[in-house]
Amino acid sequence: MPRIPFAELKAEFKRVLLNRGCDEAAAELSAQLMTETSCDGVYSHGVNRFPRVVEYIDKGYIDLSARPTKLESLGAFERWDGNLGLGNVNAWLSMERAIALAKEFGIGAVALRNTNHWLRGGSYGWQAAEAGCVGICWTNTQPNMPAWGARDRRIGNNPFIMSVPRANGHVVVDMAMAQYSYGQMESVAMRGGTLPVPGGYDAQGELSCDPVAITQTGRVLPIGYWKGSALAIVLDLVATVLSGGSSTQKIGEHGGDEYGLSQMFIALDATRIASEAYLASAVNEIVENIQGSECVDAASPVLYPGARSLAHRVANLAEGIPVDEAVWATIKSL
Amino acid sequence: MPRIPFAELKAEFKRVLLNRGCDEAAAELSAQLMTETSCDGVYSHGVNRFPRVVEYIDKGYIDLSARPTKLESLGAFERWDGNLGLGNVNAWLSMERAIALAKEFGIGAVALRNTNHWLRGGSYGWQAAEAGCVGICWTNTQPNMPAWGARDRRIGNNPFIMSVPRANGHVVVDMAMAQYSYGQMESVAMRGGTLPVPGGYDAQGELSCDPVAITQTGRVLPIGYWKGSALAIVLDLVATVLSGGSSTQKIGEHGGDEYGLSQMFIALDATRIASEAYLASAVNEIVENIQGSECVDAASPVLYPGARSLAHRVANLAEGIPVDEAVWATIKSL
Repeated sequence: MPRIPFAELKAEFKRVLLNRGCDEAAAELSAQLMTETSCDGVYSHGVNRFPRVVEYIDKGYIDLSARPTKLESLGAFERWDGNLGLGNVNAWLSMERAIALAKEFGIGAVALRNTNHWLRGGSYGWQAAEAGCVGICWTNTQPNMPAWGARDRRIGNNPFIMSVPRANGHVVVDMAMAQYSYGQMESVAMRGGTLPVPGGYDAQGELSCDPVAITQTGRVLPIGYWKGSALAIVLDLVATVLSGGSSTQKIGEHGGDEYGLSQMFIALDATRIASEAYLASAVNEIVENIQGSECVDAASPVLYPGARSLAHRVANLAEGIPVDEAVWATIKSL
Repeated sequence: MPRIPFAELKAEFKRVLLNRGCDEAAAELSAQLMTETSCDGVYSHGVNRFPRVVEYIDKGYIDLSARPTKLESLGAFERWDGNLGLGNVNAWLSMERAIALAKEFGIGAVALRNTNHWLRGGSYGWQAAEAGCVGICWTNTQPNMPAWGARDRRIGNNPFIMSVPRANGHVVVDMAMAQYSYGQMESVAMRGGTLPVPGGYDAQGELSCDPVAITQTGRVLPIGYWKGSALAIVLDLVATVLSGGSSTQKIGEHGGDEYGLSQMFIALDATRIASEAYLASAVNEIVENIQGSECVDAASPVLYPGARSLAHRVANLAEGIPVDEAVWATIKSL
């Protein structure tokens, strides 16, 4: 697999966005975020997703000229309309606004409606942490998972992100409510492999590690069974009703195309709430205690959330970002 | 099992607290919360937990005369010290304060340190919803679960709550990060039963549905394997560093007794952010869509989060709250 330098991959993303009519500032930001996502090892939501972003631009679902507009302010909480602009730009601007509110009020929140897929949700967790804030955000999605006890897919996998600033590597959790994404199951299936833990139900109604069998039923498994199902439902409810936007159900009425999402962004100004020295030592103490766990497998050290992304970043900045040859050819041709 | 009327159970709780020297207002509130918890079917965190609350009062871990004091205010965010007062009273007062801040700023948050076990976390979700707010709260706990990939227990199961107001029954998620609590595994073990889905690892290192085997290794399973582990870590981090309180690690230094916890309470004023009519119709639409799912088992309708608590409440208010005979005798003797 070719390894493309950060700057070259970013320049390609930016070139395509500019060609499609995107303005300089938005193209720069969007390309930066997509390249960072790939650099952090989340290829599914960076380089591999880019052709779909362009497809959605061409279909008119993503309006490159649109920017979020403020609908209402209640002090530390604001409601914004994404006007169907680029999803990662909208999300970044919303978290930036939540951070600004947190700097003013200690905590700040933005509910965003009519937006598009934010690509890697973790990006906005890293963004908040980089600004010295605890970041909490989530999005709804199209219906892609059955509720617990259901056969048909009526809930989203609604990724949820929470982050804490840390000088030598932020702590960032970025988790969808499904045990595996369809993208992950697809790539395991392509290798002819099986999932390490059950990811859904097969046609016989049994829990299965076979990604093909699960994709056929569509009965993907929520994390923690009934628990992840419940959390997915309430995440959709909160994002929808506070933004006044579309629910997972409504997004499902777009014929399988995923646009017009609802999202929530919350920031807490950790570096003002706590002193920097205290914050650094308290976070490190917790992280180091977890890293010091007795390992099940000596070859697999216990990692803190975010460690893997940082390791990918270091390696990919040094050696270039691995990009599938066919995907790279597609992007070059756009 | 005897069924005790709500008022009688509450009066017993209150009598014991008053006898131990608790003031009238705190005894009334604490007893009300514990009775509601039992009435909603969460017996493990209501009536069955009460003897432990009294034990902790007698050991001096819970200071009945202590109330939370404000340490710092940053506008919409406040930091409070629980002064080791009664856990459910401290938590209720903190969510009440977060609600008041939300009424002023749209969103409000309280970080609380040096508090005690809040019993049912869902109580504070119901409380926020009852006030027309979205409620988000969580607590850390003593170390009771291994991080993903670890053998020894260094993380907490750190319950997380999220709620949305709804006229005909609030939507409330109340989930610990372990697939099962020790209390749940104990009661299945007492019946000689097995868990419906794996709850941890046995001595051979295999996933197991045998609660006895799991309790012996202490290797309980986080929801979603690596995902629940990661979320538990970041929940502890945020509650600890924003409150300046004890982490799960520090709580583990109390020789197995669980006190001095750190908690977070966030409220968003849903009924000011959205109109009441919109809120009611949007929430109902999502809930009804989920209830309309095609069921795996026709005898088990798909429920929205909070439905089961409400059904217990209706039944137990009508017929009395089921209380184990031995537990009831113990409480009467306190």
